Amino acid sequence: MPTLDEVFDDVRRRTDEALDRLVPAAGVAPTRLHEAIRWSLFAGGKRIRPAIVFAAGQTFGAAPEQLSTTAAAVEMIHTYSLIHDDLPPMDDDDLRRGKATCHKQFGEATAILAGDVLQTLAFKAIAEDPALSADVRAAVISAIASGAGTPAGMVSGQQLDLEAEGRSMDIDSVEQIHRQKTGSLISAAAASGAIIGGALAEELALTRKYAGNLGLLFQITDDLLDVTQPTESLGKTAGKDASAKKATYPSLLGVNETRVLAANVHSDAIAALGAINKDTELLHLLADLILNRTR
Amino acid sequence: MPTLDEVFDDVRRRTDEALDRLVPAAGVAPTRLHEAIRWSLFAGGKRIRPAIVFAAGQTFGAAPEQLSTTAAAVEMIHTYSLIHDDLPPMDDDDLRRGKATCHKQFGEATAILAGDVLQTLAFKAIAEDPALSADVRAAVISAIASGAGTPAGMVSGQQLDLEAEGRSMDIDSVEQIHRQKTGSLISAAAASGAIIGGALAEELALTRKYAGNLGLLFQITDDLLDVTQPTESLGKTAGKDASAKKATYPSLLGVNETRVLAANVHSDAIAALGAINKDTELLHLLADLILNRTR
Repeated sequence: MPTLDEVFDDVRRRTDEALDRLVPAAGVAPTRLHEAIRWSLFAGGKRIRPAIVFAAGQTFGAAPEQLSTTAAAVEMIHTYSLIHDDLPPMDDDDLRRGKATCHKQFGEATAILAGDVLQTLAFKAIAEDPALSADVRAAVISAIASGAGTPAGMVSGQQLDLEAEGRSMDIDSVEQIHRQKTGSLISAAAASGAIIGGALAEELALTRKYAGNLGLLFQITDDLLDVTQPTESLGKTAGKDASAKKATYPSLLGVNETRVLAANVHSDAIAALGAINKDTELLHLLADLILNRTR
Repeated sequence: MPTLDEVFDDVRRRTDEALDRLVPAAGVAPTRLHEAIRWSLFAGGKRIRPAIVFAAGQTFGAAPEQLSTTAAAVEMIHTYSLIHDDLPPMDDDDLRRGKATCHKQFGEATAILAGDVLQTLAFKAIAEDPALSADVRAAVISAIASGAGTPAGMVSGQQLDLEAEGRSMDIDSVEQIHRQKTGSLISAAAASGAIIGGALAEELALTRKYAGNLGLLFQITDDLLDVTQPTESLGKTAGKDASAKKATYPSLLGVNETRVLAANVHSDAIAALGAINKDTELLHLLADLILNRTR
């Protein structure tokens, strides 16, 4: 069994190779657009979502070559959402992963277009993936579009998040936002891997349950990092949630209770894995990794 | 043979039914997002691109029931591009089809998300279309994503257009921008219909050639309308191109020479049809309609 670091190195290498292949080179006209895309795509992202595609896919027996394009596509969708989320009418962020955000570097118009076309390129890549049957391509596009879309996906979660700013929120509303904004694309990433691996309907449902909790865990630990880490180690502006008066888990529950919640959500994710009759160690390790990133 | 008005009425009815089915109802949470989507989708668009999907599809023998979802998806892609194109960092337009633009009515953040998720919903709709085989779904998504994307699609055309503002341009550069910004999605609309109808490779290439010219013709006549029509009959701010110092056909060639060019591009479109061994009357009438909208 390789270490988790080795697994992650392999995921990053395969994902970055696929991204480089699927996105026009920076020298292709219009160069500014392609430079902007690559600026954000290759900004040192941790490739968590691709890792989930690979881990879920390999759990159900898919070969890495069948997973790399879908993993890259999910990362493109994630990156488009970051570029648009950082725009002035949205979160208005200058810094992302320790670098200038796309619109600070290339201007707002180019950043809007770069995000738009990353989404287009993501679906194009899956539709044309020669490693997958047409049935699987259609099923994967459907899963990812549901997770990235509305009324229970990433964009509807972002809209709820927008509308929640400055309002008093209860814990259930915060959870609903996080499950949509972050959980649904992570769930789609896991489902895509499972679909490519040929998971049965029941296995797919358990994988989604695991990944929905993984996504929630990811957001809870993100909230924790925002209040416990300085800007330089975070790579984005720390304390942003508090200054935007966003309702977060730490603001509602306090840091200690939030840590307890994280442990419970982690347990829920692991419980779903327990009902899958496959070697789920990699998925288990991924959940541990996300839980432990606040330590 | 039904009249072109009857054909268009049928296209509009089928397309609007499909759009209504494929987009969450305005009452579904987050309501503001879905209201914004519907505000722009049902703003009285002429449904030119759906008409092209239907006309090309029926030319090659597809049934209307096989075409309506794809026609609606192309309209969703077109509408997302209008919503984003109207944003302040892009064209900064207040008026579209005689109504307030999406961001004027719902705010910039919601308009960004509404455009984003219209694209997502478009690809989701095709991926899940029960009227098409998985092979056809994948091929149609590939065609539309190429036409809407980069480096030779709608978004790269918008980027070139952005970069051209205020610069002196020659006629070839203007044509390249128009062929990408407008022609490529129209070409993809025609190709999608032809793919659904089972067109052979050569027929598909001729259909694309026809539609590429149709798209260019559409843009040339758009430029003409911008200088010859008042705001109220145009439904958007007239004289916008001149005030933005955009290089247009009329600014480079004058109105009369632009009319001659339109007639030539129309002839090129018709010539491509002539090489298709099918009844192409509907496609022919569509080209006539676009040519004659400036009369």
